[in-house]
Amino acid sequence: MLITPGKLLAEINSPEDLRKLDRSQLPQLSNELRQYIIDNVSVYGGHFGASLGVVELTVALHYVYNTPDDQLVWDVGHQAYGHKILTGRRDNFSTNRLYGGLSGFPKRKESVYDTFGVGHSSTSISAALGMAVASTREGNPQRQHIAVIGDGAMTAGMAFEGMNHAGSTDSNLLIILNDNCMAIDPNVGALKEYLTDITTSHTYNKVRDEVWNVLGKMSHFGKSAQEIVSKVETALKGALLRQSNLFESLGLRYFGPIDGHDIDHLTDVLNDLKDIPGPKLLHCLTVKGKGYGPAEKDQTKWHAPGLFDKVTGEIQKKIYDTPQAPKYQDVFGHTLVELAEKNPRIVGVTPAMPSGSSLNIMMKAMPERAFDVGIAEQHAVTFSAGMATRGEVVFCNIYSTFMQRAYDQVIHDVCIQELPVIFCLDRAGFAGADGPTHHGAYDLAYMRCIPNMIVSAPMNEQELRNLMYTAQLEKIQRGKRAFTIRYPRGQGVMPQWRTPLEEIEVGQGRKLRDGDEAALLTLGPVGNYAAEACDLLAREGLHIAHYDMRFVKPLDEALLHEVFRSFDRVVTVEDGCLQGGFGSAVLEFMAEHGYASRVKRLGIPDRVVEHGEQNELYDECGFDTEGIAQTVRALVGAGINI
Amino acid sequence: MLITPGKLLAEINSPEDLRKLDRSQLPQLSNELRQYIIDNVSVYGGHFGASLGVVELTVALHYVYNTPDDQLVWDVGHQAYGHKILTGRRDNFSTNRLYGGLSGFPKRKESVYDTFGVGHSSTSISAALGMAVASTREGNPQRQHIAVIGDGAMTAGMAFEGMNHAGSTDSNLLIILNDNCMAIDPNVGALKEYLTDITTSHTYNKVRDEVWNVLGKMSHFGKSAQEIVSKVETALKGALLRQSNLFESLGLRYFGPIDGHDIDHLTDVLNDLKDIPGPKLLHCLTVKGKGYGPAEKDQTKWHAPGLFDKVTGEIQKKIYDTPQAPKYQDVFGHTLVELAEKNPRIVGVTPAMPSGSSLNIMMKAMPERAFDVGIAEQHAVTFSAGMATRGEVVFCNIYSTFMQRAYDQVIHDVCIQELPVIFCLDRAGFAGADGPTHHGAYDLAYMRCIPNMIVSAPMNEQELRNLMYTAQLEKIQRGKRAFTIRYPRGQGVMPQWRTPLEEIEVGQGRKLRDGDEAALLTLGPVGNYAAEACDLLAREGLHIAHYDMRFVKPLDEALLHEVFRSFDRVVTVEDGCLQGGFGSAVLEFMAEHGYASRVKRLGIPDRVVEHGEQNELYDECGFDTEGIAQTVRALVGAGINI
Repeated sequence: MLITPGKLLAEINSPEDLRKLDRSQLPQLSNELRQYIIDNVSVYGGHFGASLGVVELTVALHYVYNTPDDQLVWDVGHQAYGHKILTGRRDNFSTNRLYGGLSGFPKRKESVYDTFGVGHSSTSISAALGMAVASTREGNPQRQHIAVIGDGAMTAGMAFEGMNHAGSTDSNLLIILNDNCMAIDPNVGALKEYLTDITTSHTYNKVRDEVWNVLGKMSHFGKSAQEIVSKVETALKGALLRQSNLFESLGLRYFGPIDGHDIDHLTDVLNDLKDIPGPKLLHCLTVKGKGYGPAEKDQTKWHAPGLFDKVTGEIQKKIYDTPQAPKYQDVFGHTLVELAEKNPRIVGVTPAMPSGSSLNIMMKAMPERAFDVGIAEQHAVTFSAGMATRGEVVFCNIYSTFMQRAYDQVIHDVCIQELPVIFCLDRAGFAGADGPTHHGAYDLAYMRCIPNMIVSAPMNEQELRNLMYTAQLEKIQRGKRAFTIRYPRGQGVMPQWRTPLEEIEVGQGRKLRDGDEAALLTLGPVGNYAAEACDLLAREGLHIAHYDMRFVKPLDEALLHEVFRSFDRVVTVEDGCLQGGFGSAVLEFMAEHGYASRVKRLGIPDRVVEHGEQNELYDECGFDTEGIAQTVRALVGAGINI
Repeated sequence: MLITPGKLLAEINSPEDLRKLDRSQLPQLSNELRQYIIDNVSVYGGHFGASLGVVELTVALHYVYNTPDDQLVWDVGHQAYGHKILTGRRDNFSTNRLYGGLSGFPKRKESVYDTFGVGHSSTSISAALGMAVASTREGNPQRQHIAVIGDGAMTAGMAFEGMNHAGSTDSNLLIILNDNCMAIDPNVGALKEYLTDITTSHTYNKVRDEVWNVLGKMSHFGKSAQEIVSKVETALKGALLRQSNLFESLGLRYFGPIDGHDIDHLTDVLNDLKDIPGPKLLHCLTVKGKGYGPAEKDQTKWHAPGLFDKVTGEIQKKIYDTPQAPKYQDVFGHTLVELAEKNPRIVGVTPAMPSGSSLNIMMKAMPERAFDVGIAEQHAVTFSAGMATRGEVVFCNIYSTFMQRAYDQVIHDVCIQELPVIFCLDRAGFAGADGPTHHGAYDLAYMRCIPNMIVSAPMNEQELRNLMYTAQLEKIQRGKRAFTIRYPRGQGVMPQWRTPLEEIEVGQGRKLRDGDEAALLTLGPVGNYAAEACDLLAREGLHIAHYDMRFVKPLDEALLHEVFRSFDRVVTVEDGCLQGGFGSAVLEFMAEHGYASRVKRLGIPDRVVEHGEQNELYDECGFDTEGIAQTVRALVGAGINI
């Protein structure tokens, strides 16, 4: 389907074209850009609200600054669709997030205008500061460096670390705080309240009131006194905004707040800021979803709504003839509530992903027992550890890829201390359209090397429920090991998923199928592909045993002895990195016990796998059904040379 | 050597004893405690300045609060010696940091008064908040929760994340900001300047001056106006301290600054604060090394001075008859300057460890090219990535254990983007007396699973120099892979270490010794033990080949083919975790190529290894010289069953 850009937008093939426009044309261009985003996302999907909220800012930035020489860094990158469309990617924007197409995030390989690849939050200040320091060293301190960061991303410690460093330098850095009160879900925490406070001059009013109270009504001093007080007020307000602001405290000159949708004013302000050297922050108020009514009204829903009818605002729902399997996320959310109803010590923690993880089900059902701590993975884990010292049974749900942010806390605060925190790693394996920044590729390797850690992966919904049930049992909690359960993004395989809760013995796998020629050892939901591959091969006369190992740590040693005593051809399959993952754990077992079977490992290869549908990526990496079958055929048929 | 405590201290076997004292006795107890720390550390070693700085605070906290029911969390824990001595560990304090003795840090297993194990910085706020939330859930919201955190630790993002959450709750949490302007090295960054600013009422003065300027001198308004202005000033100061403080911005009530050595005042203030509910911060000014002149004067040197003469303040230096090998740290520092003199694009980065890493050599020689970014590992890595996008050649030096804090940034900001940042991981392997929180045990596993990453470990000083030289070569930088060089804490093996710089081909190992019966494959400095083991075994008639692999990624496949074609008995040795590390990489190679040699892997086992001298820990884990030799003997002699 061909999307036609507006008249002005059709002529913009790079920011240089944009800069040829008259300032008076910018509002129209903004409208056209907004419409183009709506037209595209409604038909092709993708992130939505964030980009609509920064249309004017995007136009103004490329109009005022000399991109790409001036360095523009978008934090997270959900909001960079307008940026992509204005920087030469308008006509292939319909390939956004598709396999082989444009990335949904800024990406250095894609464009010279994408100065820094993003996806995870709160990296922009550090990156732009690094560029600014380099520019000074290159003898080009006039070059401008702009980091655009949302108020949600500001809560991550990394942003604070960057500001703390920036504020003590004289680097030419502009931080644009894009304040829309939202992460994907509504932003939380004290900083959010503070931003509201300065936006509404609340602090100023409080100081003024206190001063006023002390002074009394002043009536006995007469008119001259009132004049003084009025002057004091004016001076105080200006001085307070300058001197007592949180960002000023960190050495950044603070400007704003300004209306981020007033392109004329934005253009003026950005032009002025170009001439102010040193580190500075512009506080910009925007509305997520701006200009599209339904998206302004329900910003979480419209963060990434899927396809929709742009006229009616109706989001397309797929209609099925048969009952569908649920999302793993919903199985997690409902099961957690089910468990928490029985076990009063259970609490839930999420760093800013209540809707993504479905912890919002618990937040709604038992709000006092579910904590959204904001974009703050490090804090989420150690906060969980602190609760665990007091006997709470903590389900800390973090996307696998974001758990990389809290790796030290898992080691240092949880496992070394033998605290039985339960980690639910969502979106393990391929994240799909979000691509390499979001793939949960490394968790099996980086978690299983930690002592006092159990690492498991359910093959389906029932297994997820049973692992969650097991992890919270008192006898397991008493074992003082952290318990990781990793599961993928998206739909499972069991339409009838509300199965009775049953304990799984820790470290116990299961044999799903007997065989003669070879054995498949799988971990997690790729076991379903393996099962299909077994069926396929059986029809060809090859009888392959299949074991769902469930745990990469501890391994089921009894089961592995059975496997290696019975089979001299073994294939391992995992949706995690091949270096150091599940397959490697199996090799370690073999070396330990002197087995010499021929083992072929399937999993995520040692390169950056790009974005695409999950099944496209499984296919690419050779561990979809056909890929597994093919590997088995080669191993069994040809012997050594596969 | 027996250290005799003072009269009062001798009677304090728990904080309950302390709380029986009269308030008037606290100054004397503080003096005795300080002296006891000096007496002990001068003879037995350990951290020094930090604990001296909080003597009065420690006494006051245990006097005022009902520990251990009230929850006291020490951040980092360098400063907790007084706490340990007052909480039942006085008489075995001489075993501090020794193998089998007390830990140098608070540790849950050691005492019920150690509510949270620490070592890495900035975890205390999150942990104490978790405890506070749990107390409320337990129906005990009156319980007090205190986090004592230094101004250096406050710069880490994690502390900010904790405050952002705490400030939006009504938890009963007291954060004590122990402000001594120091981390191990002098604290850096904007926050430090801010703390100085509020300590000196600088902001208040600026606001007042601005207001005053606007008002003019007021002389034309006469006496009544001056009276008003004076009242305004007073009101303004109070209001400003309350409303416009950075911590107040984050929802924490701010108190202070107060003198942290005035025990009487401290006791009063803490008593008052017990009655103020909700999250709050007490800003306490202390002097690191307080009460010991030399330590007050050179705080970095006296952070952990080693043994010293407590009377003269002379730090013991070991005197040797022969030239000694340098510390790896100094080899790093000097070599970096040597390289930077030739390559103008080289810069250095450290997160608050200039003296520990010896980056201070570069900071002194070329201050504009070496960056101490404060305790901020996440920022350090992404700041490095930002510089790398502009062509800088960045040596980012982070202790292996602290790199766990920046794991996501290594993956997301460096490797996915193919930026050739050079990571020098200091204190890889066993950290020694600092113990499990500081062991660099996991880096080989967690780094080698990342794509676009080279992982190497030098066997000695010459190899370290050559790896550093290689990493910065233009042709290697053009390869767009990050380059990790991990090396241990402490002394190397080459007194004549200033060897000519030579390129090492990336991924190329080397054969050090031919053999018949078996091969030893080693990575890093454990190769020296292996070489000794080979000598030992040769004298017994066992001829063992020895390969120093240098790189765990990429592996030297040609060399490994040679090894596995020649030997059916192979031992791998690494000073890293056995799960997923170097040995596992070798097993992966074997599986890939169908080799079936018998392999025994030596390295750090899958449990928390406690503190001790490095060689004691090598011995314990069986990869010192004798341990390696014994493993080889068993493998060669007994065949399969080892």
